[in-house]
Amino acid sequence: MTAERSWWGWGTTDRALPDDECVQLARLVPGLPDRPRSVPRVGDLALPPSRLAAPAALPVTTEPAVRAAHTYGKAYRDVVRALSGDLAGAPDAVAHPSTEDDVVRLLDWAGSAGVVVVPFGGGSSVVGGVEYRGDRPWLSLDLTRLDRVLEVDAVSRAARIQGGALGPVLEEQLRPHGLTLRHFPQSFEFSTLGGWLATRAGGHYATLHTHIDDLVESLRVVTPAGVSESWRLPGSGAGPSPDRLFLGSEGTLGVITEAWMRLQDRPRFRASTSATFASMVEATAAVRAIAQAGVHPANCRLLDPGEAALSGASTAGECVLVLGVESAGLPVEGRLAELTGLARDHGGVVAAAEDSAAGAWRSSFLRMPYVRDGLARMSAIVETFETACTWDRVAELYGTVQAEVGAAVREVTGAPGLVNCRFTHVYPDGAAPYFTVIAAGRPGSEVAMWDDVKTAATELLGRLGATVTHHHAVGRDHRPGYDRQRPEPFALALRAAKAALDPAGILNPGVLVDAV
Amino acid sequence: MTAERSWWGWGTTDRALPDDECVQLARLVPGLPDRPRSVPRVGDLALPPSRLAAPAALPVTTEPAVRAAHTYGKAYRDVVRALSGDLAGAPDAVAHPSTEDDVVRLLDWAGSAGVVVVPFGGGSSVVGGVEYRGDRPWLSLDLTRLDRVLEVDAVSRAARIQGGALGPVLEEQLRPHGLTLRHFPQSFEFSTLGGWLATRAGGHYATLHTHIDDLVESLRVVTPAGVSESWRLPGSGAGPSPDRLFLGSEGTLGVITEAWMRLQDRPRFRASTSATFASMVEATAAVRAIAQAGVHPANCRLLDPGEAALSGASTAGECVLVLGVESAGLPVEGRLAELTGLARDHGGVVAAAEDSAAGAWRSSFLRMPYVRDGLARMSAIVETFETACTWDRVAELYGTVQAEVGAAVREVTGAPGLVNCRFTHVYPDGAAPYFTVIAAGRPGSEVAMWDDVKTAATELLGRLGATVTHHHAVGRDHRPGYDRQRPEPFALALRAAKAALDPAGILNPGVLVDAV
Repeated sequence: MTAERSWWGWGTTDRALPDDECVQLARLVPGLPDRPRSVPRVGDLALPPSRLAAPAALPVTTEPAVRAAHTYGKAYRDVVRALSGDLAGAPDAVAHPSTEDDVVRLLDWAGSAGVVVVPFGGGSSVVGGVEYRGDRPWLSLDLTRLDRVLEVDAVSRAARIQGGALGPVLEEQLRPHGLTLRHFPQSFEFSTLGGWLATRAGGHYATLHTHIDDLVESLRVVTPAGVSESWRLPGSGAGPSPDRLFLGSEGTLGVITEAWMRLQDRPRFRASTSATFASMVEATAAVRAIAQAGVHPANCRLLDPGEAALSGASTAGECVLVLGVESAGLPVEGRLAELTGLARDHGGVVAAAEDSAAGAWRSSFLRMPYVRDGLARMSAIVETFETACTWDRVAELYGTVQAEVGAAVREVTGAPGLVNCRFTHVYPDGAAPYFTVIAAGRPGSEVAMWDDVKTAATELLGRLGATVTHHHAVGRDHRPGYDRQRPEPFALALRAAKAALDPAGILNPGVLVDAV
Repeated sequence: MTAERSWWGWGTTDRALPDDECVQLARLVPGLPDRPRSVPRVGDLALPPSRLAAPAALPVTTEPAVRAAHTYGKAYRDVVRALSGDLAGAPDAVAHPSTEDDVVRLLDWAGSAGVVVVPFGGGSSVVGGVEYRGDRPWLSLDLTRLDRVLEVDAVSRAARIQGGALGPVLEEQLRPHGLTLRHFPQSFEFSTLGGWLATRAGGHYATLHTHIDDLVESLRVVTPAGVSESWRLPGSGAGPSPDRLFLGSEGTLGVITEAWMRLQDRPRFRASTSATFASMVEATAAVRAIAQAGVHPANCRLLDPGEAALSGASTAGECVLVLGVESAGLPVEGRLAELTGLARDHGGVVAAAEDSAAGAWRSSFLRMPYVRDGLARMSAIVETFETACTWDRVAELYGTVQAEVGAAVREVTGAPGLVNCRFTHVYPDGAAPYFTVIAAGRPGSEVAMWDDVKTAATELLGRLGATVTHHHAVGRDHRPGYDRQRPEPFALALRAAKAALDPAGILNPGVLVDAV
């Protein structure tokens, strides 16, 4: 945990790909330059002067390196903008509250001074959720000092955890209790509990409890209109859920400072395997049967042939289904046998004892963002988008994305690119397909080129009634698709709720709704 | 389905207890009169004159018997008030829309005429959710003509169902598809899909998908500000869930006219059994172990000794745990064995093959509301209240209710009464205890006496941080407890949302929030 965080790219600097690996990777995509662009030193870059002078008692800094590191999230377009040295949109200042009271005082000051506040957890947003695109002075509110597990209730298996705790930081504090939150998004190391809650993050479990939402007992949220704290309850029917209004509110209604979270015993029994399928038709039928059987595997990831090849799970042009079951108290072999039985019933070939595909998949999964950054330095376009739809539309969605996003890539870049797919989470009534696009960009035009591809993708998702995001959140980048998807009366209600809780309109403006 | 609905009591008139059975039942409670009060004929009762004259084109009636039958829900206090012939609060009129457009036109008219609208599904509210306690003219909006299954998607196992469909009516339409919603609240026969959704009803499943909330794909809601329709999605992370704002809104934000609901294949494999425990301490530990093991039994109902005796499950002074597992596609013996193993680990004695306790419990469960009405006619106080809390507080809650509600009963009635408990639903982090109170009332004072007991119960639930309702909803009766429980910033947001969606304040005023 001592490695230095990258200011421009994913994760830590020690894991960034060296130049020669970037060059090697670029062979994936014909037409790229023959050497990577250099990474600017943040000290060499010009930042706009800060327009803010916070009271000295507030934990606010205008230090340039800190402002630079809080300018963007970690989307492909963020990485490219940072690599190009564009820091024009940097926050005027960054706050590091150490207590909830600090958060209250910061919001009070910001409200009275008309300062925009953008909550910042691990800063791993890939949807423009932690930047600001307006003209007002703005403060990035870095919550990572609020990182303590404050209380553990081992009987109910729950803990009260501060919102700014990064994944490893909170798991480390839970480990001595034999408990775990078991929420492992790809960003696990570099994202916080509060960020997961504010964005309805998708986690470890491929079925059942796919989103962090289901792990919440209660929330504590600082809003400009006061502190909201719901009661710790395992279930309730008392009016609309207060927590569900704040879950997914993406920093527009308040700052999540604490949550009581449901925990798991650390699993002792685990089994995993994989199965291959000749086509997506068969594989999809198998996954649907599994999702509808009530077995609830912890892992159930389907890789299409392109994704299987890219991740090293299989280069034979087949689909790979990675399956895993786990339990703290009960043996899992019986459940794994039920799953492999269903896979075989639908034409799957189940792997022999040694589970190489699952292992290959996992290491590739964690390395992928670094690969993305390496390819970005080679001027490749490399980005993902994800969605969910009901089973009746999954095949059409998969086919339409291949055709239309493939066509958009060709049109924008002049050459074909890769459009791979995996299902990250599955439900009895549908699936969450996750697409990766890799193509050759023109140096200097990558962001605009990706935006064109993304516009085509968003349009087709909306046309097919597939959600604009399954777990990446809305942020600023998904606003057009979200505005189309969100029922208009709900928009009225949400705007009214925002006006009531954030009357000065300082909280993350531009995300989800425009201020009234 | 041709039996006549009772205007004053639960269900259908053919199942109301005859006088001699009422007398026999009353032996449970010392000090009751020796004969039941007679049931008034609705035609003999005086209704206040209707203050409404709706346009002739609207499906509105002022027929006295219809108004009488829409005056109250089916709480104990409703039954007693009806038996006493008190119809002073009857609706001025009752509407029976046959189409969603009827609903739109009715809300338009009501908004312009300043008429209060109280949505009415099956009318089985036990929390004062379908009456009106103000001075304005009011319309009961009976939705039961909107009762069609409009579309079935067998691949995704989902159906588009109108909000006014009663349980049996919708299940009958799903049966030919081999599918079932499998939502079986005690009120199943006499409550509607829209009512379940608006009140976050608790259903068949004792674990996992305990509330109807989890079975919702999308909602269509007529609000005075427009029709809200969310997209059919198996999962999403696009902003706060629009559906979760309407779930539990209890008719205050809009009228739910349709929903896409997740269905199940009809179970082919089922197994159930029961286990007895010497004490609630052991039994609670067993239930907690089961709830935390990830086995997800469909049934997991714990009856305390009083409840076991009352339901006929056991008269030996022991606790009874009823367990059931079901699946459409996979044998369930293995899972049942896991459950009974956990029960035995915690001192449970598992029943021999024949499962008499489970059967006794089920028939008692369905008969209970009719028993309640029979006892009410004997001037008994007989009512329930239900809650949920985390495991760390379950034992304290159980003991405190026994002590304090027991004391309240003694103080109010001058004699001890029964305070029984069952756990209706259980969670990894807590349980939902459901209490039944039976005591001797004084004829003419029963409602006031129950209200005093209920006040004591609500106060102690709030003190212990247990929810004011797990699945009965808030209505008007739970407002004091709900107002204490609901975080104040959420109240601000909810009031603002209501003002945006229902600017004339016509929808179910007094429920959840007061108009701004």
